[in-house]
Amino acid sequence: MAAENSGKTLSREDVDFNLFQVLQIDKLAARPLYADLDREIFSAVLDTAETIAASHFQCFYRKSDLNEPSLEDGVVHTLPELKAAIGAFTEAGFMSAHAPANEGGQQLPVAIVQAAYAFFQAANIGASIYYFLTVSAGNVIRAFGTDVQKTRFLRPMLDGRFLGTMCLSEPQAGSGLADIRTRATLRPDGSYSLKGSKMWISAGDHEISENIVHLVLARIDGAPPGIKGISLFIVPKFDVGNDGAPGQRNDVRVFGLNHKMGYRGAVNTLLSFGDNDDCTAYLLGEPHRGLEYMFVMMNEARISVGLGATMLGYAGYLHSLEYAKQRTQGRLPDNKNPLLPPVPIIQHGDVRRMLLQQKVFVEGALALGLYAAYMVDEERSTHDTTARDEASLLLEILTPIVKAWPSEYCLEANKLAIQVLGGYGYTRDFPEEQYYRDNRLNLIHEGTNGIQAIDFVSRKLRMKDAAGLDLLGRRMQADIADAEAAGLAEFATQLRADRDRVFEATRANFRNAAPGRMGEYLVNSSSYLDMYGHLVVGWMWLRQAIAAKRILDAGCTGDTEAFMQGKLSACQFFFRHEMKRIDHWLPIVASNDTTVLDTSPDWL
Amino acid sequence: MAAENSGKTLSREDVDFNLFQVLQIDKLAARPLYADLDREIFSAVLDTAETIAASHFQCFYRKSDLNEPSLEDGVVHTLPELKAAIGAFTEAGFMSAHAPANEGGQQLPVAIVQAAYAFFQAANIGASIYYFLTVSAGNVIRAFGTDVQKTRFLRPMLDGRFLGTMCLSEPQAGSGLADIRTRATLRPDGSYSLKGSKMWISAGDHEISENIVHLVLARIDGAPPGIKGISLFIVPKFDVGNDGAPGQRNDVRVFGLNHKMGYRGAVNTLLSFGDNDDCTAYLLGEPHRGLEYMFVMMNEARISVGLGATMLGYAGYLHSLEYAKQRTQGRLPDNKNPLLPPVPIIQHGDVRRMLLQQKVFVEGALALGLYAAYMVDEERSTHDTTARDEASLLLEILTPIVKAWPSEYCLEANKLAIQVLGGYGYTRDFPEEQYYRDNRLNLIHEGTNGIQAIDFVSRKLRMKDAAGLDLLGRRMQADIADAEAAGLAEFATQLRADRDRVFEATRANFRNAAPGRMGEYLVNSSSYLDMYGHLVVGWMWLRQAIAAKRILDAGCTGDTEAFMQGKLSACQFFFRHEMKRIDHWLPIVASNDTTVLDTSPDWL
Repeated sequence: MAAENSGKTLSREDVDFNLFQVLQIDKLAARPLYADLDREIFSAVLDTAETIAASHFQCFYRKSDLNEPSLEDGVVHTLPELKAAIGAFTEAGFMSAHAPANEGGQQLPVAIVQAAYAFFQAANIGASIYYFLTVSAGNVIRAFGTDVQKTRFLRPMLDGRFLGTMCLSEPQAGSGLADIRTRATLRPDGSYSLKGSKMWISAGDHEISENIVHLVLARIDGAPPGIKGISLFIVPKFDVGNDGAPGQRNDVRVFGLNHKMGYRGAVNTLLSFGDNDDCTAYLLGEPHRGLEYMFVMMNEARISVGLGATMLGYAGYLHSLEYAKQRTQGRLPDNKNPLLPPVPIIQHGDVRRMLLQQKVFVEGALALGLYAAYMVDEERSTHDTTARDEASLLLEILTPIVKAWPSEYCLEANKLAIQVLGGYGYTRDFPEEQYYRDNRLNLIHEGTNGIQAIDFVSRKLRMKDAAGLDLLGRRMQADIADAEAAGLAEFATQLRADRDRVFEATRANFRNAAPGRMGEYLVNSSSYLDMYGHLVVGWMWLRQAIAAKRILDAGCTGDTEAFMQGKLSACQFFFRHEMKRIDHWLPIVASNDTTVLDTSPDWL
Repeated sequence: MAAENSGKTLSREDVDFNLFQVLQIDKLAARPLYADLDREIFSAVLDTAETIAASHFQCFYRKSDLNEPSLEDGVVHTLPELKAAIGAFTEAGFMSAHAPANEGGQQLPVAIVQAAYAFFQAANIGASIYYFLTVSAGNVIRAFGTDVQKTRFLRPMLDGRFLGTMCLSEPQAGSGLADIRTRATLRPDGSYSLKGSKMWISAGDHEISENIVHLVLARIDGAPPGIKGISLFIVPKFDVGNDGAPGQRNDVRVFGLNHKMGYRGAVNTLLSFGDNDDCTAYLLGEPHRGLEYMFVMMNEARISVGLGATMLGYAGYLHSLEYAKQRTQGRLPDNKNPLLPPVPIIQHGDVRRMLLQQKVFVEGALALGLYAAYMVDEERSTHDTTARDEASLLLEILTPIVKAWPSEYCLEANKLAIQVLGGYGYTRDFPEEQYYRDNRLNLIHEGTNGIQAIDFVSRKLRMKDAAGLDLLGRRMQADIADAEAAGLAEFATQLRADRDRVFEATRANFRNAAPGRMGEYLVNSSSYLDMYGHLVVGWMWLRQAIAAKRILDAGCTGDTEAFMQGKLSACQFFFRHEMKRIDHWLPIVASNDTTVLDTSPDWL
């Protein structure tokens, strides 16, 4: 059996750099919402996350790949290590780290919570799914549930006694939620009876927790067709009585498991509700507003998915970096004397290029994910309504990028990590191949990247008369000015120029966004999203370079100096190598080329 | 257990189009070497390949992934289907399809043989490794072996009684062959005694054939250091007596199996030679020329690897295309009425984009692989020395591209195929994920793509005063002229312009290729290879468009018309979308940016 990777899977130094130097998150402590917090507390939270991630999550990452959950006699079996991991996570307070103090939570900023979660994701992405869904489902109940629902379901979720799921897709309607068929019938007692099947339900069954709380999209009898007739329900595995203890087994069954290429530690189920016409469901909020409710937690969920993808890339980067420093092979092009010893492969230009490329992808994605998480904090904690609206708008326009870009480019990083190891990287003796298999999912779930692209081009770019675009431009401008002042003119100039031509093409294309012609307007959505992704990550690199330059200019030595020099080099690589990709996508977008639509399906 | 994919994995129509319309391979029949052949024979060969690939190879592709070969008590066990497949392949004459008539072979053109082999690769890439290595090893013995060696080893390999391997890498020296340590000691009888370990040996042990013929790189005692002291040996698993029958078991043992992410049907072994100081080896050709001999078959082997990668991409493309035509989901952006039925997903712009992108990758790669194979035929069969030298030169410059480009972009095609299916594509119920896992190897073996890039930039571009580059330019020019005459001016103009600016930057950079500065010159090799890959595949698309246009202009209907229209659309997509990537790579190459080398390993 392959050994577990016991090395670092995420750089604490990089997390701290982003939180404390780039985002200067300590400032949040001045806000009433976070009044009792300070940097020391933030650091202690991260310390704990780092420790438990290593001791309880990383230790069975490969094992969970080799031992998929099984379904026997209708019961799902998972590894004992998983239950222990979720237990340790809860015990340390992470299940309620984000929750308000009046719920017994720590009321930590989202950026700190996401940073802490990142350590668990980097250690064991499959295991992270269980708490992720619980926290997400809990947030929806907090926002829209009744007090009784909060007491019965949210409370034990925060205590880790109940875990949660999200039940959206159905076999016949994956991303097409308008066509879901699960039906809800009102009962005399005000509850509903649910009937239908759900597909792709992660953590849909297990014996880790006392109970499972499913949030289920369904259509109340007589509801309008399409997405405007979808409601959201709480469906507990065991119904919960007034005493709060799990009671009678509800009529929800797992009838199959999906067996995937990766993410094998996260059980993925097919669930059927109401096979015996006895599935009890509680309406959450008002009828027909289910999708709207789900979308409230979507921004945060998509930040999590983006950061999860980032962490798989990060873990692969650090492992392949360590390998490249140890492994000797071959000689340099300018001195091939076979009598000399072979060199560590990091000395080879193309190997170092593959490492640097991984670095700009994973560190760029981390900066982006934490920036977005910080915007959630900004939105929540500021009392300045303009600042709040801007944070909200920025989040809207960034979310598709925050989800899609890391999944695309950190998968690319995983591909490069394998390549650094060569044949070894392709074997199951090293973790690179598992990171690669696992990360392939992140382009698909929480809205495929194609759907993110359509959302971005059809809604986000144009919303409020393109106010999001304008705001994005202004925020970039502020950093461009800082970069110029910091002596980073090359990158500042390039970002300004790239931003201007990308925005110009975007605005010119708005004229094509006319009713009846939206198919044409949207045909190159993926090129748009790729292009904006690189533009935004270029901006994130500029922000990191400004912070690094400031620290270097103030004087530093040793590891800190090397770290900051690495940030500057990586920024340079991103601008000189990666940003050039904009020249690939821009002419496609600018010409609004319709070759794809002009190609008849019969010609394929 | 997941079902086997019983659909088409390669388009016969596309193979025929390339061979007979684009390459016009029938012309070869006019050459003395192929005098007894004609189109009817070529078609019959392809018919047989297509039939046997479906009946004996495709039927256990998934099964071979789920049931890896096992090593028990020093013996490797493989699936019975594998032995049956190799048997049917041999029975139908494919093991000697390429061999000269005087060896009992069919003396078929390489392009026909590679096209036939492509069907087996598309059906079951793991199983194809066994005959591929046998044919390659046999070719080396034919070129450099003595008559006795040919009788004892080559003859039974052509009969499929013996299978072959290539033993190059060692655990401490993967791609760094200069450092191999396996030793060969001359015995009084003229044979050698071998001692050492080899790594990554595909088909290194099994019970499919009576015997296994290993070709092994080793260092004769006292040989010069480095690659100039490496010799090539024949090491049979069972020694072969004068009667040609396998005799005594030789001192070569399998001491471990590599367990990979993919290619699981192809057993990959660690071999030890001479554990008991009794490993008999026969020198092939002259001492110290082993690497040179291996490189003689390298061009063809790399064409095979490129075509193998292409076939995995092709199989994924066809499967996802079929799925996209059947699966209904969602509605079009200009008519989202939920009362209308959902549309087949091929109607969605971004899904069709993913299909078209797969199409240009896999069909472009197929055209390239067959073009290169045809150049081998041209080199062998022409009596015009200029034509022969040119074919040889063109092969030299194209080989790194033929190996690397398909592996890179057909892996990308596999990634897109998964995306077309969404969550389903990520499960093991569909073949897309296996194609993706399998294809990841092709960037690594037969010389990593990074090594291909260095070979391309350091040797191939500059060899003979850049004569290869000039020739490539002239060959493109001939097709550019034809394209203009055929009314394909848009693509002709673009190819000319791209070629000219790529060549200009390349030539300007030659000044950096100075002794002591080769590290700098080579630092962006991968960008070079990517850029030339797209340039050359753009040319391949232009050639296909010319042939398609000719057929359309001559008048055709139905499926043929749709096929030709598809070629024109795909060419347009390649030029308007894919060729723009050159604008990403060109400035990196043109500026000879050295950010990578300027980044200290400590900064990573």
